[in-house]
Amino acid sequence: MRLALELAVGGQGRVEPNPMVGCVLVKDGACIARGYHHVFGGPHAEIDALQSLRSPDQAAGATAYVTLEPCCHHGKTPPCSEALIRAGVARVVVAMRDPFPKVDGGGIRQLRRAGIEVTPDVLKADAEALLAPYRKRVRTGTPWVIAKWAMTADGRIATVSRQSQWITGPESRLRVHRLRARVDAILAAMGTVEADDPMLNARLIDAEGAAVTPPRVAKRVVFCRRRLPALQSKLIQTADTIETWLFTSPRVDGGRLAALQQRGARVFALDSDDPQAMVRQTLQRLGDEGMTNVMIEGGAELLGSFWNPTSGACLVDEFHVYIGAKLFGGVSAPGPIAGAGLSPIDLATKLTLSRVDRFDDDVRLIYRRVVG
Amino acid sequence: MRLALELAVGGQGRVEPNPMVGCVLVKDGACIARGYHHVFGGPHAEIDALQSLRSPDQAAGATAYVTLEPCCHHGKTPPCSEALIRAGVARVVVAMRDPFPKVDGGGIRQLRRAGIEVTPDVLKADAEALLAPYRKRVRTGTPWVIAKWAMTADGRIATVSRQSQWITGPESRLRVHRLRARVDAILAAMGTVEADDPMLNARLIDAEGAAVTPPRVAKRVVFCRRRLPALQSKLIQTADTIETWLFTSPRVDGGRLAALQQRGARVFALDSDDPQAMVRQTLQRLGDEGMTNVMIEGGAELLGSFWNPTSGACLVDEFHVYIGAKLFGGVSAPGPIAGAGLSPIDLATKLTLSRVDRFDDDVRLIYRRVVG
Repeated sequence: MRLALELAVGGQGRVEPNPMVGCVLVKDGACIARGYHHVFGGPHAEIDALQSLRSPDQAAGATAYVTLEPCCHHGKTPPCSEALIRAGVARVVVAMRDPFPKVDGGGIRQLRRAGIEVTPDVLKADAEALLAPYRKRVRTGTPWVIAKWAMTADGRIATVSRQSQWITGPESRLRVHRLRARVDAILAAMGTVEADDPMLNARLIDAEGAAVTPPRVAKRVVFCRRRLPALQSKLIQTADTIETWLFTSPRVDGGRLAALQQRGARVFALDSDDPQAMVRQTLQRLGDEGMTNVMIEGGAELLGSFWNPTSGACLVDEFHVYIGAKLFGGVSAPGPIAGAGLSPIDLATKLTLSRVDRFDDDVRLIYRRVVG
Repeated sequence: MRLALELAVGGQGRVEPNPMVGCVLVKDGACIARGYHHVFGGPHAEIDALQSLRSPDQAAGATAYVTLEPCCHHGKTPPCSEALIRAGVARVVVAMRDPFPKVDGGGIRQLRRAGIEVTPDVLKADAEALLAPYRKRVRTGTPWVIAKWAMTADGRIATVSRQSQWITGPESRLRVHRLRARVDAILAAMGTVEADDPMLNARLIDAEGAAVTPPRVAKRVVFCRRRLPALQSKLIQTADTIETWLFTSPRVDGGRLAALQQRGARVFALDSDDPQAMVRQTLQRLGDEGMTNVMIEGGAELLGSFWNPTSGACLVDEFHVYIGAKLFGGVSAPGPIAGAGLSPIDLATKLTLSRVDRFDDDVRLIYRRVVG
């Protein structure tokens, strides 16, 4: 199952909105096939594993380890439960039940009705952690939200004079591009668009420095609370080739929207200019558009809008904190999360540390928000 | 030599102002003795290793690996160079030359004159890193300065309402007490003394929760720029048992000094109320008092005084950054280093990451300032 979970990650960035799934077939103590769901619309993990066998009858009597309950409905591909039954496997070990309403235990029931022994909940917590974004989307209809920032060892994202390039080194920045290359949307506020004129895209290179096609091209989502992007901005200049979505409050200059749409930008008119309401409505809409993972690229004010300072409620699920080996100091040097802040200390957002990585003198900490 | 360096660390907190030194004797490919300098005034590493032999003549023809050039002068103990010669070792491998003026190559010369083969500079960089505090004191007469802070994953040391207990967990706080237990002085400003009424001492416990005697009891050094501690403060209440040194500017109320001295506090009158000048003069004085390691316990304003914002010059050598798995957010939530800050970005203090440790969901990053 550990191996099947590792295989599942191979589909990250390519399979969504489907879940990542891995599958290993074991017979007489030996691993005879491994597979995973490679890409949306392609074969599921179980089929991928079965297809890797030299002859189909090898699977007879084998045990299938699958990280997610096999599907039992006709989607883009026929049901995997039927394929496993037809292949003659003796036993199926499942890490977690698929919360998708058309499955939700039905795959396991179908296998058992066919006389196959099913062992559920093996490494369940690991599978649930891996599929947290998928589970959130199925449960709430909204995407998994990842916030990323780079700060100095004293927690500053810029100097007192607002300089910030660069806090981290090239290895860290490569990791950020890899994250951008697997999410469905990259979110930024107009302040960041005006200050940095960013592309908000993934620029991946291989070991020789040649450009690499990312697994997924994220939509660029801009929060336009008071102002709209300039026609000359890189975002609008490239809006005909990379989707650029403007979520606008009623306060923006409606007369300029037509010109932006003509350049290829898509406009989503929100009915509020309250930053927290704008965030909530936008996430709902991104969920409606089928998104599983979105990331926030800045700035600190936008990020602050993902909290309700009164209740402490937080709309971010995962945090990628890059720490550069520098110090900026200064009372007025900005931190990563602006807004009113959380106080008293009991309201502070509690996190669990998922992983720690070192890239040269930089450190990356990945946290998930503690729920409940 | 790797083993000798590990042994050397055993004396940390007990040998200063002497250097930490480790020694391993090898004969016929086997390690026949290991030793280190345990405590100030006690036998040096070479003697400790020689004394561990079952019979003194075992050392004849052996190779001694020593992390620091053997001393050649009569200090608290007789010279180690002579002891090695007498023991009949054939070869001495040395990691680094002792910069102490009474040695400074003399130990190596003496060994060579006695016909012993000396191989210098083996793992020199590691030995120099280990002895950086000792080297700084010998070179400049001022102590190695360690800044420690605990911050959230968004770089805050308190909420917007100035709450800060606790950012990190018990494992991290134990590590802080271990650091306090090996330094010569713990520095704090009056703001911290007034806000927290701290003890500024090391409280170590063993696995059963029983109190452990720390290797060293740090002097408590308070910067009194405008005000003096209250007679009721914990620091002054315990000043008769734990040394409490007040470094005062000319602006403090001189009439109150006698009462503080009567309780056991020692007063050092500085001739300036400029925070940077106060810090410089204080470090010089702590060096004159024979201190090797001092740590800054806060607050953010005092820490900021260790920088010259115009030149970027920094008087801190090492940084222990504890990161708790929490987020506070908020524009006005304080960061660890106050003051004017460093700007433009080229003035930012550059660090190298010495180590990364995880304690539960906390992370500790230890950095050293890049010199030159």
